Amino acid sequence: MPRVVVDVMLKPEILDPQGQAVANALPRLGVNDVASVRIGRRIEIEFTGEPDLDRAREIADKLLANPVIEDFTVRLVEADERAEARS
Amino acid sequence: MPRVVVDVMLKPEILDPQGQAVANALPRLGVNDVASVRIGRRIEIEFTGEPDLDRAREIADKLLANPVIEDFTVRLVEADERAEARS
Repeated sequence: MPRVVVDVMLKPEILDPQGQAVANALPRLGVNDVASVRIGRRIEIEFTGEPDLDRAREIADKLLANPVIEDFTVRLVEADERAEARS
Repeated sequence: MPRVVVDVMLKPEILDPQGQAVANALPRLGVNDVASVRIGRRIEIEFTGEPDLDRAREIADKLLANPVIEDFTVRLVEADERAEARS
């Protein structure tokens, strides 16, 4: 059964101290070729029946994202895509 | 320039109280067809040069995910995919 994935990221103009902290830690690990790190949320929603993108968008807007500082995208993901891409 | 996206999700056997709280709030919004909600992190890494998936995997393993309770996937995303999918 496909699931709906909501990606929530801070708007590009909003500072992301958490991502900045990770970026600042990288040189200590010997990583010097990273320009920026941004940390957001990924929410997986499983529906009992057919996945409903409009319904998911409504949930994201009301419960999952803060539209003042965050952007979100809603998309369908096949259930097996996740296992396939797993590293 | 493509960026690397790291998706970090709790392993399926680990309880997700945050996702459960969202799922429990949905009926109050009139949403009754959601079976489960799982909340994880999405990290976008921009490299100064060519995106390096192996390097990103190393960063995810050392800094971004807790391999005891979390799984992560690493993938390339075209820079314009994000804007295109924006709702």
